[in-house]
Amino acid sequence: MIISTGFAQGLNLVLHALAREGAVTCVAFEDPGYGSAQVDETVRAVLAMGIDVAYVPVDEQGLVVSELAASGAQAVVVTPAHQSPTGVVLSPARRHALTDWARRIGGYVIEDDYDSEFRYDKEPVGALQGLAPDRVFLLGTASKALAPAVRLGWVHAPAPLASAVAAEKEMSDRGSCMLDQLALATLLTTGRYDRHLRRMRTVYAARRTALTDAFARHVPRTQLSGLAAGFHAVAPLPPGSDEAAVIAAARDRRVGLHGIGDYRGNPSTAAPPALVMGFGNVRERTIEPAIAAVADLLS
Amino acid sequence: MIISTGFAQGLNLVLHALAREGAVTCVAFEDPGYGSAQVDETVRAVLAMGIDVAYVPVDEQGLVVSELAASGAQAVVVTPAHQSPTGVVLSPARRHALTDWARRIGGYVIEDDYDSEFRYDKEPVGALQGLAPDRVFLLGTASKALAPAVRLGWVHAPAPLASAVAAEKEMSDRGSCMLDQLALATLLTTGRYDRHLRRMRTVYAARRTALTDAFARHVPRTQLSGLAAGFHAVAPLPPGSDEAAVIAAARDRRVGLHGIGDYRGNPSTAAPPALVMGFGNVRERTIEPAIAAVADLLS
Repeated sequence: MIISTGFAQGLNLVLHALAREGAVTCVAFEDPGYGSAQVDETVRAVLAMGIDVAYVPVDEQGLVVSELAASGAQAVVVTPAHQSPTGVVLSPARRHALTDWARRIGGYVIEDDYDSEFRYDKEPVGALQGLAPDRVFLLGTASKALAPAVRLGWVHAPAPLASAVAAEKEMSDRGSCMLDQLALATLLTTGRYDRHLRRMRTVYAARRTALTDAFARHVPRTQLSGLAAGFHAVAPLPPGSDEAAVIAAARDRRVGLHGIGDYRGNPSTAAPPALVMGFGNVRERTIEPAIAAVADLLS
Repeated sequence: MIISTGFAQGLNLVLHALAREGAVTCVAFEDPGYGSAQVDETVRAVLAMGIDVAYVPVDEQGLVVSELAASGAQAVVVTPAHQSPTGVVLSPARRHALTDWARRIGGYVIEDDYDSEFRYDKEPVGALQGLAPDRVFLLGTASKALAPAVRLGWVHAPAPLASAVAAEKEMSDRGSCMLDQLALATLLTTGRYDRHLRRMRTVYAARRTALTDAFARHVPRTQLSGLAAGFHAVAPLPPGSDEAAVIAAARDRRVGLHGIGDYRGNPSTAAPPALVMGFGNVRERTIEPAIAAVADLLS
């Protein structure tokens, strides 16, 4: 395990190590996912390394692995437990197809485990890494459980590549802040980290309920999705809606909304309009009035 | 000012930004200095970026700027206030020659200000950056004043390049640990940082005195140099001495010594044998007995 300063650095380290060995010249991202280089610095960083980027669509089973195989990428960044942003869980069939793809072409899967500490109404979803530890990098972060300001993450690399990733870390910045690592270790060993997670799960679950209740009351025909884990839901807009116009009209009423358009890598994808509604950093009592204020725009 | 996780990352950010604009394909290092790629990961990181490395000798006035001009490098990493490891201060004539070189070729100076907080018996040495703010990157670090475990440093970039360096930081890791930055800011604004520096200057000055006293007593013909600042001195060995043999013999007596050989970039440089003696992390009372135990090896 290599300690990084978060997912962003972890991905850079993995890709540097793979690119240096000539193992990767093109990386695939989920679409919707990180979005285009115009909106996302993760994608920008990959392109700045001289690595090409491909976008592979996501459907109701998660990443469409057949399209990944056609993309020419030798590595793919996926969010199998709770696809970002759709919230879809990668289906068992797709999990096997994905690891088969990696084994067949000698490719790599980079598993972005960004929010699995916060799972509400289902059994925990196993890591993809367990299915193919020789082909999957598992990247975790303390950004969601603690705070992005902490800058601690980790990379679980296939054993033959661990020292190459560690060497990249050493060259990049010599190691992550030790004081923060000691503080996190103390939280873990004293059980306070688990207690914090339990407490925050209750807090986030209440905000999540406030959001689903507000939709049930004010936008009853809209089915929210992606709520099994994490801090966001996807709300489809009626077919033919103009995402940008809805967001602008909501902003005039002092309600901040985000469209799924920002998460699209391929702007030509004709995808239905939707909103990505984060509730991680919103006070519970503000949720119902905000949805009430924009209900007519959403239905 | 861009906050980094220390000198190593700062240098990477600066070189990535310069290389991306095509401004640098070869970087010069002082010799002795960081040493060869075999011993030093800073040099390894530069080579891993696809940037060539040149070594430029240091004499009693510091970096030999005429040889820098002949090296083909477009950037140079220097330690002008207290050359690492010789301890020489870059002379006024060389300072002007160096900034003239940078202006003439459109090159860049990367000033590694690694220990100027700890200066003992001379007036503070001004930063090179003040002479040519348009051509000099000034890199500082909290590693010496606080601890390397803190992972905080800073890059003062020429104004037209600051946003390019900031963009590299953003792509690299999204920003440095905020908790550590807030802690350092609190130390600075409350005056506790200055108090800490004053206290540590006294501690290090006592260790420095213990080292010079021990040499005066046990190895009286050896003149230590480089003691104006920082935590190390250079002790020349008698002409013809075998540095490695002295170090091995001292190790048999349980005294750890370091040769200046590890700091040489160009192994073919016929430079006189010497030891680099660190006293920053050595208890004061162990210094005299250690020098006494190896005095016959040093004289």
